[in-house]
Amino acid sequence: MSLLTVGSVAFDALETPFGKTDKIIGGAATYITLSASYFTKENNLVAVVGDDFPQSMIDDLTQHGINTEGLQVRKGEKTFFWSGKYHNDMNSRDTLVTELNVMENFDPIIPDSYQNCQYLMLGNTAPSIQQLVVERLQKRPKLIVLDTMNLWIDIANADLMSLLKLVDVLVLNDEESRMLTHEYSLVKAAAKIQAMGPKTVIIKKGEHGALLFSEGRTFFAPALPLEVVFDPTGAGDTFAGGFIGHIAKTDDTSFDNMKRAIIYGSAMASFCVEKFGAERIMNLTQEEIQARVNEFVTLSAFGL
Amino acid sequence: MSLLTVGSVAFDALETPFGKTDKIIGGAATYITLSASYFTKENNLVAVVGDDFPQSMIDDLTQHGINTEGLQVRKGEKTFFWSGKYHNDMNSRDTLVTELNVMENFDPIIPDSYQNCQYLMLGNTAPSIQQLVVERLQKRPKLIVLDTMNLWIDIANADLMSLLKLVDVLVLNDEESRMLTHEYSLVKAAAKIQAMGPKTVIIKKGEHGALLFSEGRTFFAPALPLEVVFDPTGAGDTFAGGFIGHIAKTDDTSFDNMKRAIIYGSAMASFCVEKFGAERIMNLTQEEIQARVNEFVTLSAFGL
Repeated sequence: MSLLTVGSVAFDALETPFGKTDKIIGGAATYITLSASYFTKENNLVAVVGDDFPQSMIDDLTQHGINTEGLQVRKGEKTFFWSGKYHNDMNSRDTLVTELNVMENFDPIIPDSYQNCQYLMLGNTAPSIQQLVVERLQKRPKLIVLDTMNLWIDIANADLMSLLKLVDVLVLNDEESRMLTHEYSLVKAAAKIQAMGPKTVIIKKGEHGALLFSEGRTFFAPALPLEVVFDPTGAGDTFAGGFIGHIAKTDDTSFDNMKRAIIYGSAMASFCVEKFGAERIMNLTQEEIQARVNEFVTLSAFGL
Repeated sequence: MSLLTVGSVAFDALETPFGKTDKIIGGAATYITLSASYFTKENNLVAVVGDDFPQSMIDDLTQHGINTEGLQVRKGEKTFFWSGKYHNDMNSRDTLVTELNVMENFDPIIPDSYQNCQYLMLGNTAPSIQQLVVERLQKRPKLIVLDTMNLWIDIANADLMSLLKLVDVLVLNDEESRMLTHEYSLVKAAAKIQAMGPKTVIIKKGEHGALLFSEGRTFFAPALPLEVVFDPTGAGDTFAGGFIGHIAKTDDTSFDNMKRAIIYGSAMASFCVEKFGAERIMNLTQEEIQARVNEFVTLSAFGL
């Protein structure tokens, strides 16, 4: 089934205890769509870059079967740029530079060929832009998945509340869920979020795994214990991409299939952190993914 | 099979955002042995209290089938007392009072009737005392499980290193494993600990579950997502008690059975935090425990 991903395509410059990069390809939609490309063949992207964005990076996306018809290239403007430096524990980071550039007035134009997509993944960007996307689709997708961040909970709360009524699944991390609901318990936080609109809530806990709340049921997916986290950038988006990619591939939104989708998402995220930026998820095989998923089975299976 | 538990029996005074207690029964060995009592019938305790320790509290233990022959009551001396106050997130706490009292010169005397125990659980106390216990057993138990804490890693490192060579399983939390090994990655930390002696390492991550490393294999047990954590005191010891209790009951130290034991330990810990101190684990039924264990199955099971 066809998946539409909307969000940022960007330049990132990253610094971790293991080294630093020049400007490499980044952005939520990049990670999501690349990750999803290993699952679904109909991958449509809506995003915006400046004319400083190299054709070779766009080619990298199209080589993964991603339709870039909806990727606007703005003449004379510059691509969104983010630079960050991770602390030694890799769990916190400082933003060094944020240049919104083309993202400042991103108008998410949906190409006609993208209409009738069955699945919609709203990568992290301003809730007002995300809502525009929903409104511009002539037919409501089967499943709308939303990612957001602390910034929007803080400065665009009303927009976010309006948007939450329109989506099926909210993906956010534990801190964000606490910020959004003022509840420390993730169980209570998820219930409050469900009352805001999304029937399904996925709370990411980074190295501690992820929780799925839906239909009164709860599922916990572990994160793979890793020897080295080389660069966590994009891991959350890669997780979301694997999740929605698996759903789109199987065209099944049942709770049991969402559990599988979270395992696939977690497996994809575990690859993402192995190298800088999107490097690792640019170069994966189906065999590697399946082997990684099997590690999750081994890790968490027990018999009574 | 018979289990010997050695460690502190104490008074605790606790303060959480939900309220505060007067002096209630606490101490690592109390939680361990109470938790284990739901699994194994042969529960032997070695500990020391002062004569300020009420007989009614000792009766609470014996009513759970715990053999208190090895519980020394020192005339004219006072019981170990600890008082702590939890912060709002329940993940950190301040120690308000520590009065070692009888623990200052605890001599772990093993009654003859305790010799030939098959399983030994060394609850958190000074490594030199823990080692005395191992040396005083005429026959090495089938499995020796050790708990320790940051204090001993800091001030009794050489003693701890000596002791680690003698034990089979080390149970500690994530922070302690990092402190002991200077490795942030829990995978690397576990490998380093295994090189120090224990073939099996269990790293507790509190609300994030627990990891088991043994025989080159890794197992992850989730913690149950809870609406309310009322009081986390003793949760780690209760976990250890459920773990060793299940092992002693089944007399099976295989990796697969250790996985089950960790699930039982996690279930017991999830009860512990529901009320102040040991109140909840004083009053459990086998049906409640089984139902809780089944929640872990539901929480983490998935099919590909």
